[in-house]
Amino acid sequence: MVGPCFISFLFLNLLPFFQTLEASHCPINGLPLVRNIAELPQDSYGIGGLSHMTVAGSLLHGLKEVEVWLQTFAPGSRTPIHRHSCEEVFVVLKGSGTLYLASSSHKSPGKPEEHFISLNSTFHIPVNDVHQVCNSNEHEDLQVLVIISRPPVKVFIYEDWSMPHTAAKLKFPFVWDEQCFQEPQHDEL
Amino acid sequence: MVGPCFISFLFLNLLPFFQTLEASHCPINGLPLVRNIAELPQDSYGIGGLSHMTVAGSLLHGLKEVEVWLQTFAPGSRTPIHRHSCEEVFVVLKGSGTLYLASSSHKSPGKPEEHFISLNSTFHIPVNDVHQVCNSNEHEDLQVLVIISRPPVKVFIYEDWSMPHTAAKLKFPFVWDEQCFQEPQHDEL
Repeated sequence: MVGPCFISFLFLNLLPFFQTLEASHCPINGLPLVRNIAELPQDSYGIGGLSHMTVAGSLLHGLKEVEVWLQTFAPGSRTPIHRHSCEEVFVVLKGSGTLYLASSSHKSPGKPEEHFISLNSTFHIPVNDVHQVCNSNEHEDLQVLVIISRPPVKVFIYEDWSMPHTAAKLKFPFVWDEQCFQEPQHDEL
Repeated sequence: MVGPCFISFLFLNLLPFFQTLEASHCPINGLPLVRNIAELPQDSYGIGGLSHMTVAGSLLHGLKEVEVWLQTFAPGSRTPIHRHSCEEVFVVLKGSGTLYLASSSHKSPGKPEEHFISLNSTFHIPVNDVHQVCNSNEHEDLQVLVIISRPPVKVFIYEDWSMPHTAAKLKFPFVWDEQCFQEPQHDEL
C-alpha cells in the first residue's frame, strides 16, 4: 500500500524565452514522445491575465479525442462566459476562485450558480452548460489543469448572462488553436 | 502576463479513512459539483504497490467521453503490459520511472522502446500501442495524472512482450470499475 504522499509539482515559467521564438510550424510529427512541461510554449493569446499551455493537444500533438491544458489566471482575470458541446474537467493546482455555472435549458443562461473552488478542487462542466471561471482571489494566481473531449474546442461566447443562447458568438478556432488550425481540404471537383 | 509560478499541489492520502467505509453505492447523482480530491476514495484494487483514484469518471460521475485518474506507484511497482483502444495522456506529478512502449503493427509487441519519465514529463500513448509504466526509482513513489478517452477503459493484458496480440486477455470492467459497473440492460423481447 502506498503511504501518505505529497505532490510537489514544479512548473518553471519559461514564457520570456518562448515569446522570443517564432512558432512558425505546428509539429504533430517529429516531437519527442516524452516532453517536459517546463519547456512547452505558453502564451496569453491576447487574453489579459491568462497564461495558456496546451500540454497535449489535437493540432500540436495529433490527439483526436482528448486535450489537456495548463492555465494560470492572474488575480481578477477570468474566462469569457461561454459554452461548448464537449466534456470538460478541471483540477485546481493552485489558488482559489469562483466557478459560475448556468444550464442551457432556458432561452438564456440567467443568473448562474456560484461555486467556490480552491487547491485540490475538481469539477466538470456538463456539456453545453454556460460557465465562467474567475480568479476572485486578489493575491494569488489561480492555476488549473483542464481536460476537454472532442478537440479542437469550439467555443460559443456570451456578452453577459442574459444573452440568448442563439446569440452567443462562435469562436473557432479558439485563440490558442488559430496558428496551427488548417481548414479541411476539399476536393476541387 | 502571469509571472513565474510554482505549482504546489497538496494531496492528502486519506486511504486509512476510506478503507473503513463501505462503498456500497455508485453515486452518479447526488454528488456535489465541486469535490475535494483529498476526500475522494482511493484503493489498490488488489494491485500491489498501486494507489488509484478516479478523479472524474464514467461510472462514478457520469462522464461519457473522458476520465481522469490519479495514480501512485510504490518503488518497483508497475502497470501490467497492456493495450487499449482509447487515447491516454500522462502527466508526471512526482518521482520518476520508465515507460515501455511497443507498437501494435506486428504479430506481437516485441522488445519495447524504453523512455525515462520524471517530474513534469508528459506523454501520450498512441491508440492500441502496447505499454507498461514502471516506477524504476527505488526510493520514491511515482505519481501520475492520467487522462483517457472512451471510458470505462477496456484493457487487454499481456503476460510478456512476446505474447501475440490475439492472445492478450480482455479485462473488462477493469478492477476499479468492477464495483460500479452494470451490464447494459437488454429488452427481454
